[in-house]
Amino acid sequence: MNGRMLPAGYQYAGIASGVKSVEGARDLALIASDREATVAGVFTQNLVAAAPVVVCRQRTPTQRGRVVVVNSGNANACTGEQGLTDARAMAAAAAAVVGVDEDQSLVLSTGIIGRPLPMEKILAGIQQAHSELAAGAEAFEAASHAILTTDSGPKTMSATVDCPAGAVQLAGMAKGAAMIGPNMATMLAVFLTDAALEKEVAQQVLKTAVDLSFNCISVEGHTSTNDSVLLVANGAGGGSPLEGEDLGAFQQGLNDACLELAKMIPDDGEGSTHLVQIEVLGAADDASARRVAATVANSNLVKTGITGCDPNWGRIISAVGYAGVPLQTDSLGLELNGITLFKDGAPVSFDEQQAVESMRQSREVHVKLELGDGPGRACFWTSDLTVDYVTFNSDYHT
Amino acid sequence: MNGRMLPAGYQYAGIASGVKSVEGARDLALIASDREATVAGVFTQNLVAAAPVVVCRQRTPTQRGRVVVVNSGNANACTGEQGLTDARAMAAAAAAVVGVDEDQSLVLSTGIIGRPLPMEKILAGIQQAHSELAAGAEAFEAASHAILTTDSGPKTMSATVDCPAGAVQLAGMAKGAAMIGPNMATMLAVFLTDAALEKEVAQQVLKTAVDLSFNCISVEGHTSTNDSVLLVANGAGGGSPLEGEDLGAFQQGLNDACLELAKMIPDDGEGSTHLVQIEVLGAADDASARRVAATVANSNLVKTGITGCDPNWGRIISAVGYAGVPLQTDSLGLELNGITLFKDGAPVSFDEQQAVESMRQSREVHVKLELGDGPGRACFWTSDLTVDYVTFNSDYHT
Repeated sequence: MNGRMLPAGYQYAGIASGVKSVEGARDLALIASDREATVAGVFTQNLVAAAPVVVCRQRTPTQRGRVVVVNSGNANACTGEQGLTDARAMAAAAAAVVGVDEDQSLVLSTGIIGRPLPMEKILAGIQQAHSELAAGAEAFEAASHAILTTDSGPKTMSATVDCPAGAVQLAGMAKGAAMIGPNMATMLAVFLTDAALEKEVAQQVLKTAVDLSFNCISVEGHTSTNDSVLLVANGAGGGSPLEGEDLGAFQQGLNDACLELAKMIPDDGEGSTHLVQIEVLGAADDASARRVAATVANSNLVKTGITGCDPNWGRIISAVGYAGVPLQTDSLGLELNGITLFKDGAPVSFDEQQAVESMRQSREVHVKLELGDGPGRACFWTSDLTVDYVTFNSDYHT
Repeated sequence: MNGRMLPAGYQYAGIASGVKSVEGARDLALIASDREATVAGVFTQNLVAAAPVVVCRQRTPTQRGRVVVVNSGNANACTGEQGLTDARAMAAAAAAVVGVDEDQSLVLSTGIIGRPLPMEKILAGIQQAHSELAAGAEAFEAASHAILTTDSGPKTMSATVDCPAGAVQLAGMAKGAAMIGPNMATMLAVFLTDAALEKEVAQQVLKTAVDLSFNCISVEGHTSTNDSVLLVANGAGGGSPLEGEDLGAFQQGLNDACLELAKMIPDDGEGSTHLVQIEVLGAADDASARRVAATVANSNLVKTGITGCDPNWGRIISAVGYAGVPLQTDSLGLELNGITLFKDGAPVSFDEQQAVESMRQSREVHVKLELGDGPGRACFWTSDLTVDYVTFNSDYHT
């Protein structure tokens, strides 16, 4: 981590404000740009959007962004006046400590829902975070810890993107281990770059990258009200706003970055024992392929079958059948970890013990579905469903 | 059970053919009408339909039905030639033992999927079942046991429907405890009446009743390939085919009968500790209301929250938000077991301990959602999601 190349012109802090009940657990992150930055955002598609999402939607895309504040432990998931008042106050406090206008501040929030935000702790935490703002890998790491909830560890990436006009740096941090659905989920991610981007361009490249990554993962298919992905581009690396081949290279770099962090989320799905990749080929179009992949990914019977290392083609094929996509059932095919289970619409005999062992010995399970001759394809990632997931999500209440 | 009034003109058998591994477990049912009967059917909406569904679809509605054969323990869930050959052979064997034409025989199948049917055992079982055919409650009970899989016990009903022109008898049996989705699921049900019905009328009344009952339940939202509901009407009670007020009374009786059996399925959902009723009011139309109800019912986070007796409005409201139905979020309201948790788009303070206790002390949980002023409404029933469900569906593999 210490050798990580980070984008120029950013400072980070991650501190313990006391919202999380564990003594010393980091729960408040501050990320500041030393100059006005383009900020683009993609948010939950849930019609019930939490207050921080409402505030961020109003303020992005912008070319004047300066600071992002994130709290974890207790989500501001409220939709009413109190939620908006708290979200605006959090953003205003972050703006005040770094000495910028209120509307140059973005706010994200995650954690337990159903309780009002403990604003006193959060406002004090923002003061403390400001005093700890620093550049470099250690501060980046601290911030990446402070946005986590039930994650088993931080989810970060950094990369150098070789644009023809010159290399730019890209770094990202994400959180999310549950309530992850295909339309963004209780999933927060912030990407930082020292490239320069026009705000409409930044919005477009972020949307493209998120569609191919964060919108292709699920843990349990429940779309949260708080999901947010931000891209901050401060241009501190020098050069003019990216376009043409430079922009193409940046788009590819951002796609890779989003996919790298997105796959970490189902891999860290609460209680999960397998990361499942569902690949669908031969659909009429990409949208149909994605719908089939998402339906298979969200089937509890498919998930529990994979937990049990059972090469159960029946559960998978029957999920394909109710995805709501027209099918030529006699051209359906299925491979699991490279072993053909179903071909031309009928089961084929296979070495069951070999298939079971391949699932037992690998954390990654690859489900490959052939629908027919169409050009449509999609990839979707999900976690399996275990006893621990249920315990975790039902047994927390006092 | 022995005092049960059953419709006239039917004989039943339920025997152990050896397909289920438990010694003596009933796994083959035969139901025969002593005269040609109208038979209507409603089947899975899964595009991958199992062979028995294909055969039944071809043969219903009919006015010449005579026999229904059902096997459990091993489903004929195949879609290819072998599945069709086996389904037709099963139906033909049942027709042969009662001495009728092959196309007067209907066939249903449920159980573990992914294995070909052990036809030798099943054909011998049909012979044995024929020798045990009998009228009366004991034989009806035996048949109702023979269609079960993971059910904890039989699901049966009987009622006298008071049509103005004279009373008719109605009885039904169902199975299903998992893979239950909103578009019919691994769920089989057979209703028998001694009323006379024209075949098109029978089809219509059955579809109406199923839409309000079996299509409003889920366990995990996975639509099976084998779901079937049959209505057999042999007219043995005398009288001409029902119409007008008589038909209206019969429709109401069948609606009640279907709902009575349908609710038993999520109540018996694998590992479930609560039967959850989701009631949605004030939607733009009934279809929107049902979509919201089904989305809430199929959320693993809502289900596990209820398992944990947590009055977690956030999980429920966020599920409403991603149902794909336009919402006025400021008119959203939620009651849980009669306690208001959310009103006019915002959480309200409530006695949390009282809400927790009401969930702990009752197997039934009532979730009531108000969306606005529209006329649309729906009711949906589901089970909660427990550690036992996951164990059951992941831990069966050797």
